[in-house]
Amino acid sequence: MKYLLDYQEGERVVTYCLVKSKEAGVASNQSEYLNLELGDRSGTISAKLWDVTPELKDEIQVKAVIKIDATVQSYRGKKQLVIQRVRVATAADEVAMETLIPMSAVPVDELWQKLTEAVNSLKSPTLKTIVTEAIEDPETSGRLRSFPAGVRMHHQYYHGLLEHIVSLLAAAERLMPLYPLVDRDVLIATCILHDIGKLYELSDPIAPEYTTPGQLIGHLVMGVEMVSGICRKHGIPLGDAEVLHLKHCILSHHGDIENGWGSAVSGKTPTALLFHYLDMIDSKMNALGQTLTEMKEEEEWAYSAVVKRKIWRGY
Amino acid sequence: MKYLLDYQEGERVVTYCLVKSKEAGVASNQSEYLNLELGDRSGTISAKLWDVTPELKDEIQVKAVIKIDATVQSYRGKKQLVIQRVRVATAADEVAMETLIPMSAVPVDELWQKLTEAVNSLKSPTLKTIVTEAIEDPETSGRLRSFPAGVRMHHQYYHGLLEHIVSLLAAAERLMPLYPLVDRDVLIATCILHDIGKLYELSDPIAPEYTTPGQLIGHLVMGVEMVSGICRKHGIPLGDAEVLHLKHCILSHHGDIENGWGSAVSGKTPTALLFHYLDMIDSKMNALGQTLTEMKEEEEWAYSAVVKRKIWRGY
Amino acid sequence: MKYLLDYQEGERVVTYCLVKSKEAGVASNQSEYLNLELGDRSGTISAKLWDVTPELKDEIQVKAVIKIDATVQSYRGKKQLVIQRVRVATAADEVAMETLIPMSAVPVDELWQKLTEAVNSLKSPTLKTIVTEAIEDPETSGRLRSFPAGVRMHHQYYHGLLEHIVSLLAAAERLMPLYPLVDRDVLIATCILHDIGKLYELSDPIAPEYTTPGQLIGHLVMGVEMVSGICRKHGIPLGDAEVLHLKHCILSHHGDIENGWGSAVSGKTPTALLFHYLDMIDSKMNALGQTLTEMKEEEEWAYSAVVKRKIWRGY
Amino acid sequence: MKYLLDYQEGERVVTYCLVKSKEAGVASNQSEYLNLELGDRSGTISAKLWDVTPELKDEIQVKAVIKIDATVQSYRGKKQLVIQRVRVATAADEVAMETLIPMSAVPVDELWQKLTEAVNSLKSPTLKTIVTEAIEDPETSGRLRSFPAGVRMHHQYYHGLLEHIVSLLAAAERLMPLYPLVDRDVLIATCILHDIGKLYELSDPIAPEYTTPGQLIGHLVMGVEMVSGICRKHGIPLGDAEVLHLKHCILSHHGDIENGWGSAVSGKTPTALLFHYLDMIDSKMNALGQTLTEMKEEEEWAYSAVVKRKIWRGY
Amino acid sequence: MKYLLDYQEGERVVTYCLVKSKEAGVASNQSEYLNLELGDRSGTISAKLWDVTPELKDEIQVKAVIKIDATVQSYRGKKQLVIQRVRVATAADEVAMETLIPMSAVPVDELWQKLTEAVNSLKSPTLKTIVTEAIEDPETSGRLRSFPAGVRMHHQYYHGLLEHIVSLLAAAERLMPLYPLVDRDVLIATCILHDIGKLYELSDPIAPEYTTPGQLIGHLVMGVEMVSGICRKHGIPLGDAEVLHLKHCILSHHGDIENGWGSAVSGKTPTALLFHYLDMIDSKMNALGQTLTEMKEEEEWAYSAVVKRKIWRGY
Amino acid sequence: MKYLLDYQEGERVVTYCLVKSKEAGVASNQSEYLNLELGDRSGTISAKLWDVTPELKDEIQVKAVIKIDATVQSYRGKKQLVIQRVRVATAADEVAMETLIPMSAVPVDELWQKLTEAVNSLKSPTLKTIVTEAIEDPETSGRLRSFPAGVRMHHQYYHGLLEHIVSLLAAAERLMPLYPLVDRDVLIATCILHDIGKLYELSDPIAPEYTTPGQLIGHLVMGVEMVSGICRKHGIPLGDAEVLHLKHCILSHHGDIENGWGSAVSGKTPTALLFHYLDMIDSKMNALGQTLTEMKEEEEWAYSAVVKRKIWRGY
Repeated sequence: MKYLLDYQEGERVVTYCLVKSKEAGVASNQSEYLNLELGDRSGTISAKLWDVTPELKDEIQVKAVIKIDATVQSYRGKKQLVIQRVRVATAADEVAMETLIPMSAVPVDELWQKLTEAVNSLKSPTLKTIVTEAIEDPETSGRLRSFPAGVRMHHQYYHGLLEHIVSLLAAAERLMPLYPLVDRDVLIATCILHDIGKLYELSDPIAPEYTTPGQLIGHLVMGVEMVSGICRKHGIPLGDAEVLHLKHCILSHHGDIENGWGSAVSGKTPTALLFHYLDMIDSKMNALGQTLTEMKEEEEWAYSAVVKRKIWRGY
Repeated sequence: MKYLLDYQEGERVVTYCLVKSKEAGVASNQSEYLNLELGDRSGTISAKLWDVTPELKDEIQVKAVIKIDATVQSYRGKKQLVIQRVRVATAADEVAMETLIPMSAVPVDELWQKLTEAVNSLKSPTLKTIVTEAIEDPETSGRLRSFPAGVRMHHQYYHGLLEHIVSLLAAAERLMPLYPLVDRDVLIATCILHDIGKLYELSDPIAPEYTTPGQLIGHLVMGVEMVSGICRKHGIPLGDAEVLHLKHCILSHHGDIENGWGSAVSGKTPTALLFHYLDMIDSKMNALGQTLTEMKEEEEWAYSAVVKRKIWRGY
Repeated sequence: MKYLLDYQEGERVVTYCLVKSKEAGVASNQSEYLNLELGDRSGTISAKLWDVTPELKDEIQVKAVIKIDATVQSYRGKKQLVIQRVRVATAADEVAMETLIPMSAVPVDELWQKLTEAVNSLKSPTLKTIVTEAIEDPETSGRLRSFPAGVRMHHQYYHGLLEHIVSLLAAAERLMPLYPLVDRDVLIATCILHDIGKLYELSDPIAPEYTTPGQLIGHLVMGVEMVSGICRKHGIPLGDAEVLHLKHCILSHHGDIENGWGSAVSGKTPTALLFHYLDMIDSKMNALGQTLTEMKEEEEWAYSAVVKRKIWRGY
Repeated sequence: MKYLLDYQEGERVVTYCLVKSKEAGVASNQSEYLNLELGDRSGTISAKLWDVTPELKDEIQVKAVIKIDATVQSYRGKKQLVIQRVRVATAADEVAMETLIPMSAVPVDELWQKLTEAVNSLKSPTLKTIVTEAIEDPETSGRLRSFPAGVRMHHQYYHGLLEHIVSLLAAAERLMPLYPLVDRDVLIATCILHDIGKLYELSDPIAPEYTTPGQLIGHLVMGVEMVSGICRKHGIPLGDAEVLHLKHCILSHHGDIENGWGSAVSGKTPTALLFHYLDMIDSKMNALGQTLTEMKEEEEWAYSAVVKRKIWRGY
Repeated sequence: MKYLLDYQEGERVVTYCLVKSKEAGVASNQSEYLNLELGDRSGTISAKLWDVTPELKDEIQVKAVIKIDATVQSYRGKKQLVIQRVRVATAADEVAMETLIPMSAVPVDELWQKLTEAVNSLKSPTLKTIVTEAIEDPETSGRLRSFPAGVRMHHQYYHGLLEHIVSLLAAAERLMPLYPLVDRDVLIATCILHDIGKLYELSDPIAPEYTTPGQLIGHLVMGVEMVSGICRKHGIPLGDAEVLHLKHCILSHHGDIENGWGSAVSGKTPTALLFHYLDMIDSKMNALGQTLTEMKEEEEWAYSAVVKRKIWRGY
Repeated sequence: MKYLLDYQEGERVVTYCLVKSKEAGVASNQSEYLNLELGDRSGTISAKLWDVTPELKDEIQVKAVIKIDATVQSYRGKKQLVIQRVRVATAADEVAMETLIPMSAVPVDELWQKLTEAVNSLKSPTLKTIVTEAIEDPETSGRLRSFPAGVRMHHQYYHGLLEHIVSLLAAAERLMPLYPLVDRDVLIATCILHDIGKLYELSDPIAPEYTTPGQLIGHLVMGVEMVSGICRKHGIPLGDAEVLHLKHCILSHHGDIENGWGSAVSGKTPTALLFHYLDMIDSKMNALGQTLTEMKEEEEWAYSAVVKRKIWRGY
């Protein structure tokens, strides 16, 4: 099947897609038009709809699924769709979510399976209880199967956070034998729970925005409060050393507070420090991987917003 | 009554005091001596005890109350006690705590009275419940009547934190009428609870050290968790706007995260920003006030560790 | 009366307004047009004038008052005027200044009254002379009744600086009783004179730009030189402690030099430090207040350029 | 066998050790004494030698091996040796180097074996040639079997650099399968060669100091020049992509230049970024590991100079 | 002769110029157009070519020389060319390079002469050999006669690097007598070689882009490697003090590493520090000179991107 | 003649010197002693006076000139005097100032001559008046013939500021021909007046301390106020372009305000920027020159507090 970004200049496109943003304007001939951003699993493209009627202008809302008939043109060096016909999709169209948004390449069930194995491997009853309870909460569990790891930076696609967690678990398992002072169970629990607050910091998995609690409290403290809530429910003392250690790792996983990247405390154990670097590695490798994969065949260099410089394919 | 720092060079001192630190050494004649730091409500002074016996060396422990007979001498430009006789105090000596450590000049009951008035003035039932519950908890209440606001920087004396809170309450009440967008009840509650976590971040009011939870979690998040605990107990929803706002003010009261001073989020409401500056004002004024008060009559300038420069008496 | 920003999409607007900026262009049909920014007391809006004649192009200059007949349209998500008819206003139109530019909500005479009371309250003859002389200078006095506190950041409207001063005076009066080491007269004089240099750093109150002396010397040093000029005139010795203290507070009111915000020295007295924080509070509260007031009813969050993040209405 | 730091206060010590530093002084009785720092594989301790003769004062030089007969005393809270008798060791004493300085716990031959396996695993003939040539150079090879990874921070003991390399190789091998965009051979070669310049930046493995070339050029550029020298010798073109990539990884391994930690360029490939984080992990884990290992049984917290804060044992 | 930027609004332009950038678009009437940036020795101007044919669209490539017949119009406050006729130039047009790109005002032969004199003045045989060899290499020599000192910041025109070198040589000669601890020969050699790596860091003198080695290694290390290559060829020992000093000056000429401006080491000799400041002076003076020269007669202030603020003509 | 630092360990010293600091202590035998810092033109050395009488303790004050009979000993690796006999010098001793404090190697009259020539070379009557008036003021003139350029960093010796000015004048004269956009007269005037405020920021030339005005206002603004005072006296308008330019150069000579080094504005003209770098060069060359000159013959590297790293002699 062919997706939005697979079409070349001059081709005709008939497909379903998602409205990501919308802006109305008035042309020099005084008729109205819409500037749209449309998306499907291949990514995002801008589109122009000339001479839009007031009805259509109302119907086409952000997050709507629409069917378009359009032509690919070049505008300021980039592909742009000029839409000839458009209508909002209905249930009858049976459009599958996975065709509409970018998605982790790994199936969600496979990721969940690995997550479960990691939970089962925990030896500490305390940490096993906390992690199990956290991810088996129906609301959290549903979100964890769909949310991205963020709005823009890395793993920013459907069930991207779960992919990030599973990738971190693998990295942690592989490095731990080298550094025996690291607390295995705390590190595993941190991999799983470090960003758990993001499931409530962000609004939804399709077009995520920051929620009000997300902006006021932040996902680090939100995650810590989820842990404490579970402890209270299960009678786990809040002064338990493993609980303190897990919370410390979550609160410090953005690095030293002097960096100004949003940790609430600076890491003070080998486990906390190691996790911070693993998180840096996994997020950077994912972001650079996306940039390199989207690079044109004939290019050697491409700009990466995550590291704010051009990166090299390396051959 | 005359205290340790009131004695001049050459005078004899017979008094009770607290052992703040202790270090053993061996003199060039091979006999043992002790370097001590002794303190009472007037402050701290170094002392030397030559030819100490093994028994005495054991008895004189940090946080012990002792009775000394000593002479004031000058050593490297500073006053120093040379102890002739010493013994550990007993219950029979009936030494009063307030003679042994520096203490807020305002009586604790007067401060508590003002705190209670502020609590009673809260119109929001939610915030009133949270604040009341927090300070009426027996453990917390006891600590709040004795703990300093910190180890070194400002209000670092007996019931200094309570004095700091009451001072902030006064400042907040006075400025609020000028800035109507500030949420009065949230600001009052923040004044009272912003450092409440310090009561558990520090070990005790006499010779405070950082506790393990204090170093791993920090007093901002500890305070927020105390608020959440009370909400759970009283069925106050965690998504309540006032609760979110209060927690936001606590988490952001060290200023923007880019500063690297330990906020977990940057302030995003007028109330949060105003509180941060009030806290800066009250802590700086207290610290500079101490420096200026301790200044010698004939000096115009004195070094202040808090602002890392010399400050001027201003006349 | 209805102002520029009160009109909705589709409405016709016939009103007087001020030309804030102007840019000529050539349309694809080779005719010329103007992109204008027009303003009145309600704020600023962009406008398009198609098929402009060379005469009109010349007449419509920045800072001109014009009368327009236009329609409100939407362009890239914002309201824009499309002008059908336009002419330059004449004296006969009797357009009142207060309808043309944003203005403090408090009447200037009320503000001036409060300023005068503060001056009269000064006990120090030296400081009273300096402040009185400064604000009674005819040129300065006229400017102080009209200038904004800045081009963009806070109190950026007609007699905004005076409003800022009066607000600071109120804040200072209210906090001073709490911090007895602060020098009352110096603090009051600093509130009044800290930005006095801005009256010459900026060109005019309508469309202020930075003057050449303003850019080369800056308003801190300009203010200090005004103080020194008055001292010389009145035989006040430049080494007078109060004069030094006042100048120190002016030179340090942007905070520590390490911040890189433009202080010439770092604050070294309680008075200087307190004033810096009061200035931060008053400017931030004003800027956030404007953002919150302009927020749409249905929004919870709005971007504030002053704190470079989204702020919350807080309910 | 018992080493310097194994002795307790009051015990008599008769052993061989290394003079690390020496300072002469005059006692109040006008006789001369020496303050020494003595070391063996257990670490470093201060020592006092009273009434030293001019001959002895000359004989006891830094880096000399001496035999002492001394008593352990306590001085300012630390153990100190008071030396009764001392003489310089001779060949006849047959003192083994490994008893005199701290040393990696892993035997050098085992480390070298692992290094060789990594070299053999390289598939790129270019990189294999470069790495082989580098470590088989007799001078470099000898140094690599003895030098620490630095003067103070991490792996600062005999053949510590080799241990660090082998540890990095293990970490790299383990993480690479997770990040397929990383160039395996370049990463392995970087693990081996990233600090190769340190072998000439430092003077010797016993009491390393910075050499003049080390201070003027730095070990990053020194390492790159060693790579280029080998390329020239073997006719490998300097523009070869793998060579450029290897040199890039060496030059950027201290992180982004904006950090100011001494990289010559910022990393621009996944391989370069990954290596930087692996190096951070391995050096921090080693340093924290040493601090935690040296911690007293009864302590929960100890200061780590590498992270400039107290760290927690984590139990 | 009249160049691109000499023409005023409304004038017709018939001239040769260079295509600097090119972007295709589709107008609202569905015909294609090109947005071009055209340049000649007077600078750069944007141009529009409406209704472009596919053939023409192909022919007009970046770095092509074209002949245009166009009119100057005003677009968004700037001059813009609207092209009526255009063709690609051929050899028969005999267009001289110096009419097509901005160029140092000083003839290249005069600059080269001064460079040669500086080389001849070197007393150190070692440094004389290195510098001579470096600039007489045919490839390097050709590049040095044409390359700019950078893409954007200063001396960014034909043989701009050579002009920068000669200007630095003059500055160095003039200051050296004042600072006798500076090593004359090393300073002269550094003036000549400090940016020699730029000749390979950049692609070409007409429309320079960063090369792959340039981005991976950087011109500082590239220059140092050129020096080492020459040393190897001539048997100059790499540990020679003058060679080390020269390399140190090259590696540190961007200032202290803490600044994050890309030095590989911080300067540690008077010569290295002096050179850094001379380089700052010469580059800033050149950049500001260009801004001031391009300023309109009636302006007092103009924005300088190099210092990121407005600068004053100073009269 | 032999000075304090010329004597070696074991030698007897009989000489006049200056008391730089004094500290009383009590020995273990309960007798009093003094720790002194003594200085003469060769530098500073510590000294011990055992068994001091109360009378002597009173007589020996900081800044007193004393005559000592002492022996050089070694204490903690440094030379130290042990004083056998001491008395305060009287007028009858006819001790010459130049033997007592470090002093510029260039005679003051020669420096003053060069200063005068620079003043005479000014073409601008305005600037000539300002500079002449400034340095001919009797108080200022006297101070300028004796004050150091600072307490510690560079030119920190008798008439060091004058030497610094003359050195800057030479550097400015030499570089100006290369940068024609620099305003010659403003640059010359800035060389002379940039630190003129230091003459009142510091207390005296022998043992300079910061004065109260110096700490509250700082030498940049103090200098600018001196310039304004002269302008007022001579009827030079404060808005005069040359005066503004001169004041701008003084206020910006510590570099961009973002650096946090104490400029009141960032430099905005070529003249201001050039002067900042010349000042950096001259101060760094002087400081490094002192470090290199004091280096022991056998050392290659020495620590420089000014650049906070070891510097290399460079051979």
